[in-house]
Amino acid sequence: MIPTISTIPIAELASGDILSIQVYKFVGAKPGKKAYLQANLHGAEIVGNAVIAQLIEFLKTLDDTQLAGEIWLVPTCNPLGTNQRSHHFSSGRYNHYDGKDWNRIFWDYEKEGEDIAEFAKTQLDLEPSQIRQNYRQKIKNCFDRAIEKIDKPSSVSFSDRYRYHLQGLCLDADYVLDLHSSTNQSIDYLYCFQGQEESARYFLLDASILFNEYDGNAFDEAFLKSWLALESEFEKLDRTLKLDVESWTIELGSGMQIDPDSVFRGVRGIKNYLAYKQILDISGFPLYQSFSQKVEFTPKSRVKGYYSSRGGMIRSRVDLGTCIQTGQLLYQILCFNKKGRLPEIIDVRAEASGRVFQVSTNHAVNEGEYVLGVMELSDK
Amino acid sequence: MIPTISTIPIAELASGDILSIQVYKFVGAKPGKKAYLQANLHGAEIVGNAVIAQLIEFLKTLDDTQLAGEIWLVPTCNPLGTNQRSHHFSSGRYNHYDGKDWNRIFWDYEKEGEDIAEFAKTQLDLEPSQIRQNYRQKIKNCFDRAIEKIDKPSSVSFSDRYRYHLQGLCLDADYVLDLHSSTNQSIDYLYCFQGQEESARYFLLDASILFNEYDGNAFDEAFLKSWLALESEFEKLDRTLKLDVESWTIELGSGMQIDPDSVFRGVRGIKNYLAYKQILDISGFPLYQSFSQKVEFTPKSRVKGYYSSRGGMIRSRVDLGTCIQTGQLLYQILCFNKKGRLPEIIDVRAEASGRVFQVSTNHAVNEGEYVLGVMELSDK
Amino acid sequence: MIPTISTIPIAELASGDILSIQVYKFVGAKPGKKAYLQANLHGAEIVGNAVIAQLIEFLKTLDDTQLAGEIWLVPTCNPLGTNQRSHHFSSGRYNHYDGKDWNRIFWDYEKEGEDIAEFAKTQLDLEPSQIRQNYRQKIKNCFDRAIEKIDKPSSVSFSDRYRYHLQGLCLDADYVLDLHSSTNQSIDYLYCFQGQEESARYFLLDASILFNEYDGNAFDEAFLKSWLALESEFEKLDRTLKLDVESWTIELGSGMQIDPDSVFRGVRGIKNYLAYKQILDISGFPLYQSFSQKVEFTPKSRVKGYYSSRGGMIRSRVDLGTCIQTGQLLYQILCFNKKGRLPEIIDVRAEASGRVFQVSTNHAVNEGEYVLGVMELSDK
Amino acid sequence: MIPTISTIPIAELASGDILSIQVYKFVGAKPGKKAYLQANLHGAEIVGNAVIAQLIEFLKTLDDTQLAGEIWLVPTCNPLGTNQRSHHFSSGRYNHYDGKDWNRIFWDYEKEGEDIAEFAKTQLDLEPSQIRQNYRQKIKNCFDRAIEKIDKPSSVSFSDRYRYHLQGLCLDADYVLDLHSSTNQSIDYLYCFQGQEESARYFLLDASILFNEYDGNAFDEAFLKSWLALESEFEKLDRTLKLDVESWTIELGSGMQIDPDSVFRGVRGIKNYLAYKQILDISGFPLYQSFSQKVEFTPKSRVKGYYSSRGGMIRSRVDLGTCIQTGQLLYQILCFNKKGRLPEIIDVRAEASGRVFQVSTNHAVNEGEYVLGVMELSDK
Repeated sequence: MIPTISTIPIAELASGDILSIQVYKFVGAKPGKKAYLQANLHGAEIVGNAVIAQLIEFLKTLDDTQLAGEIWLVPTCNPLGTNQRSHHFSSGRYNHYDGKDWNRIFWDYEKEGEDIAEFAKTQLDLEPSQIRQNYRQKIKNCFDRAIEKIDKPSSVSFSDRYRYHLQGLCLDADYVLDLHSSTNQSIDYLYCFQGQEESARYFLLDASILFNEYDGNAFDEAFLKSWLALESEFEKLDRTLKLDVESWTIELGSGMQIDPDSVFRGVRGIKNYLAYKQILDISGFPLYQSFSQKVEFTPKSRVKGYYSSRGGMIRSRVDLGTCIQTGQLLYQILCFNKKGRLPEIIDVRAEASGRVFQVSTNHAVNEGEYVLGVMELSDK
Repeated sequence: MIPTISTIPIAELASGDILSIQVYKFVGAKPGKKAYLQANLHGAEIVGNAVIAQLIEFLKTLDDTQLAGEIWLVPTCNPLGTNQRSHHFSSGRYNHYDGKDWNRIFWDYEKEGEDIAEFAKTQLDLEPSQIRQNYRQKIKNCFDRAIEKIDKPSSVSFSDRYRYHLQGLCLDADYVLDLHSSTNQSIDYLYCFQGQEESARYFLLDASILFNEYDGNAFDEAFLKSWLALESEFEKLDRTLKLDVESWTIELGSGMQIDPDSVFRGVRGIKNYLAYKQILDISGFPLYQSFSQKVEFTPKSRVKGYYSSRGGMIRSRVDLGTCIQTGQLLYQILCFNKKGRLPEIIDVRAEASGRVFQVSTNHAVNEGEYVLGVMELSDK
Repeated sequence: MIPTISTIPIAELASGDILSIQVYKFVGAKPGKKAYLQANLHGAEIVGNAVIAQLIEFLKTLDDTQLAGEIWLVPTCNPLGTNQRSHHFSSGRYNHYDGKDWNRIFWDYEKEGEDIAEFAKTQLDLEPSQIRQNYRQKIKNCFDRAIEKIDKPSSVSFSDRYRYHLQGLCLDADYVLDLHSSTNQSIDYLYCFQGQEESARYFLLDASILFNEYDGNAFDEAFLKSWLALESEFEKLDRTLKLDVESWTIELGSGMQIDPDSVFRGVRGIKNYLAYKQILDISGFPLYQSFSQKVEFTPKSRVKGYYSSRGGMIRSRVDLGTCIQTGQLLYQILCFNKKGRLPEIIDVRAEASGRVFQVSTNHAVNEGEYVLGVMELSDK
Repeated sequence: MIPTISTIPIAELASGDILSIQVYKFVGAKPGKKAYLQANLHGAEIVGNAVIAQLIEFLKTLDDTQLAGEIWLVPTCNPLGTNQRSHHFSSGRYNHYDGKDWNRIFWDYEKEGEDIAEFAKTQLDLEPSQIRQNYRQKIKNCFDRAIEKIDKPSSVSFSDRYRYHLQGLCLDADYVLDLHSSTNQSIDYLYCFQGQEESARYFLLDASILFNEYDGNAFDEAFLKSWLALESEFEKLDRTLKLDVESWTIELGSGMQIDPDSVFRGVRGIKNYLAYKQILDISGFPLYQSFSQKVEFTPKSRVKGYYSSRGGMIRSRVDLGTCIQTGQLLYQILCFNKKGRLPEIIDVRAEASGRVFQVSTNHAVNEGEYVLGVMELSDK
């Protein structure tokens, strides 16, 4: 199968140069669902590019009868972020022009003030596929009105232009997969929305953060929230509706690195998920271990970041992935001072038991900087 | 009058050096209201420091019988922001560590889930001064619980530490004045909350943006919102309560500059406001022109930013302060390209009439960068 | 006359996007000299782009019989620098990857260890035009060997790749004009090599810094030094040789701005210079005032930068362009402190008389930051 | 032994806060040589701080009779660099204000135009210790004249102020040890000046880069060059003079990390070196393995950096420390594009055999960015 490749200019720079994104579209012989994958929305998080490159290689080997529906892939989806450097490092988590986090800028249908409850009432007797189509059209109409602002003389900020480009590619998707990594050092895990736990297993990762709170306007949320809202409105009308629209942020290892193990797990999980969703018809998939895969779901409210209470140098830190007990020594801070005193060493201990899923790349900390993250166990 | 000066360490750096803020407190011979002033929360916005320096000079010349209550002044209130450089420029609008806007990080009592409606009911029969005191205590208790997190092993991020330092200084203030400037080039104006229009006149500035929407967690909002919420709860209980608690963001001219005219207007307005509020008893104040001062209030929803629809160089832009008509040429973009074509020039015209209150310092623009801001006239 | 326009890719970014430079070549009907102009080597210095855009417009109106030789123009010659932002500001004076000043990276034939003295001896009896041609070939051969390194597996750093791109365009030029501005606020002036004073007048600017020392590897120096070295070798051999190869850095006003006056003076001066050099045959040029134009040449060793001896805020600074006397108040520093003391004000006075030709855009200074520059008068 | 601790303010910031360096001085009971150690001159290179902290702990356990002479230690010697962040990373290799590399700013006596040859002639008949003392005084006098500039109204740039602070601490040292790490990932090694090879062994590291060329104004060079120049002048006068003044840059592992192995090797090597130099009298030192220690000296001209010839993502790179053969695959570049083509993979092979001593932390590369460094074997 050969993909259709389209190139979309997204930023004319002051110099007259243009940055683009490029979409690789594989279209199956049979109709079906649409999966949308992108990678590298944050500048340092490059693993997903290697995953997508391998998926493209793999999909090229398939026959189009093995694909039902469409798979769209967008590697290096944020050129401004990917190419940004501060010294040798990839500092592109936020836009250096305005400080905006590249993954907190997305358009959220729910905030447009449309009456979803009213819409739900009009759809009560319809089939899910029809409802999906109608709602998608409704979202699309609203989106089209929103982007009209771009063409006015006052236009919109770059963040707004950019979000319309990316979201315009996946408004009609069924499954959205946004491939991230940690800014720092991390295990592989994924973010899971409530109600998607069953599907989550097919990514074959053993750790997941379960959204029980949102911090707003992330790509995965911006796509899914309006669908969750619709399902919730049906719930109120006493109809349980499952629309099979899903959104995933998959976290593959550490920033600025391409760990082959993370790439392997990323590719395997995505193939498995697409087979489970019957987009891909590939031999042996879904893998038999999918059915016994254990995923530890940690609610987001139980994910705890440890921030340094002092300025200094981190030492003796527990390793990434360690399971820790309450009271266990997590790390020490070597503190210098400019007050004529000797250096001192501060112990920092675990507040609760859990798993260290993330550690900072930088072992120097100003007061209040990030040191590590723990997926805490529940109290039971 | 000699101020009490206290120095508060706010950041131990990785090197062992410490950054502090310093509070100059003038305490009057008579009890009264507390005014809290700070400057330079955003790194480039330095005019307020000169205003505060002049106010300190002025207050030193007063007798303590001329002051009822207290005036607290905090110049260079954000050392990390003030000292940050990128090339010769002050890039400290956001924290370079995490991209967070220094003026969108503040603690908001309203979001803590306390039952303000319930509280209002318990206070229905009390005097405003008693209600003020009770509510202040209630906020303080909640704040004290929130800051306990700092002392846990996981502690909190620098933004959270820092906000508690600043807000801890003014939780019990009656009047909060946060002195800002534009990042870019700007006229002098102020932000006004609804219901404060009468007081606004005493700053003797002719332009004001009236909050009819919030973008959240700014210093002025974080202070005032809970008080507005309480007043609103009383309204629902059919009691009109005016607590005389006010919050102001005063915008004094352009970034990275100290324009003596902006300093003059800042000092004059603040003295006049403090006299009007009967904190200062100074001859000739409030100035007679206060009573005839015209302020053009533009609702925030009618403030329009113009963003460049192309990458290139801005030319022929209207001057700062210009009153413009719909359709008038606002600026041109000189666009180069890397496609073998000649340069071109794009005209950008006004969408609506109004006053250009802000223009970008930088005449080079990548697509979607800010060019100018207009306080638009209403349609009538 | 219609230019030939060629586009040269100079940087493939991590995202797969490509940045280019674009050369506009006007070729006359008659043979003659080659003038090479570029603009915006430092990211904030955008005035030259507007100058080049106007020159292109002007040259288009000419008939090719009015041009002898060639004029090559390269606006926005450094896309990485031009597009770089830190907050709203153009921070592209140096490469954020390695800190290298974009105008200190150029290839210097003299440092390649070639024996120029020996070469001079072989050319003693030849005509200047023949010597020019032979020497150019010699430089070109050396340059070609140097760029071979690019194609090795270890390749070269971006700075080295980039310099070869730009210098490859003008190795065979007779006149090189590099259009800069100040990072800060500045008057219009130009840098003049010794021996070029007569030509300098034709730019119709009244101030010039005369090189009596180099700080190395700037674009203008990298082009001209080898020619000066050859002339000097001839001098030792008792032949005075004037090869009429010239190099200029023209400083047009302030950074991040496009002042129409600076554009006007830039365009006028360049047209006048090109007419004087008989590349352009345009009515009325060289302008009659060229002959009476006074240029104040200040040796580089008499250009003095004032750096702040304290951290604080600059106030009461003399205006740009002011002629100052020894002992005159130049500026004050408003110094805050974190030691429980009142703010203080420091006076800074002129060490010598002269002209303030540059002032910092930023009025906040950390200790040792730049405040202003003076072209000092000689002691006589 | 208890150190004397002195704190030296080095930077008053715009906010009025002050950054300092702090010197820990251990003074022995007997007279002797002076060793000066500093760490963290480049912001990301923090390992040396942990080494110095451990040395302080160790020296505290000694009796002052075990120390002949003095040991001065300066951890976090560059607060501006140490505390600088761009996103979570330590970007402080160069000053963000002017792009200057913090280790290319130092004062070089040789460039002050003093007549060292003339001085040598006056010292021909003296003892080395007397010559050392006389020359040191001569350098000191010149240095004192140079720093007078600081107190003039025009003062000096921050780099110049800062260099005088640091160099003023070690002008009279016999041994200077500057503890660095790689910006990227690195093995432990040291820089060795010619003639110091014998001493180098005592650091017990197996790899060393031998200076056969300088790139100028680094801290180690700025200290030692004038002494090498004096020895060289004596050589011309037919006297072989060894003054036992030494300067070392010790590279301990990777940036932003504190690898305990690197700390161990740093502490062990420095103790061993100081025992060898008879400053420390500690049991068992110098360690017996010092005498059999093999150091592979690679001339600086045989250290080769590999820069990416394409933009993209690095994969399949050889591990740090690998010994490679000519033609061996070193790494691949996964290249995306925005021209409608499939991604491609580029192989990069070794130009010569050697040891990979450094690899980039960041696996994303814009064209011309650093990928790895090789200490190449000689051709024999």
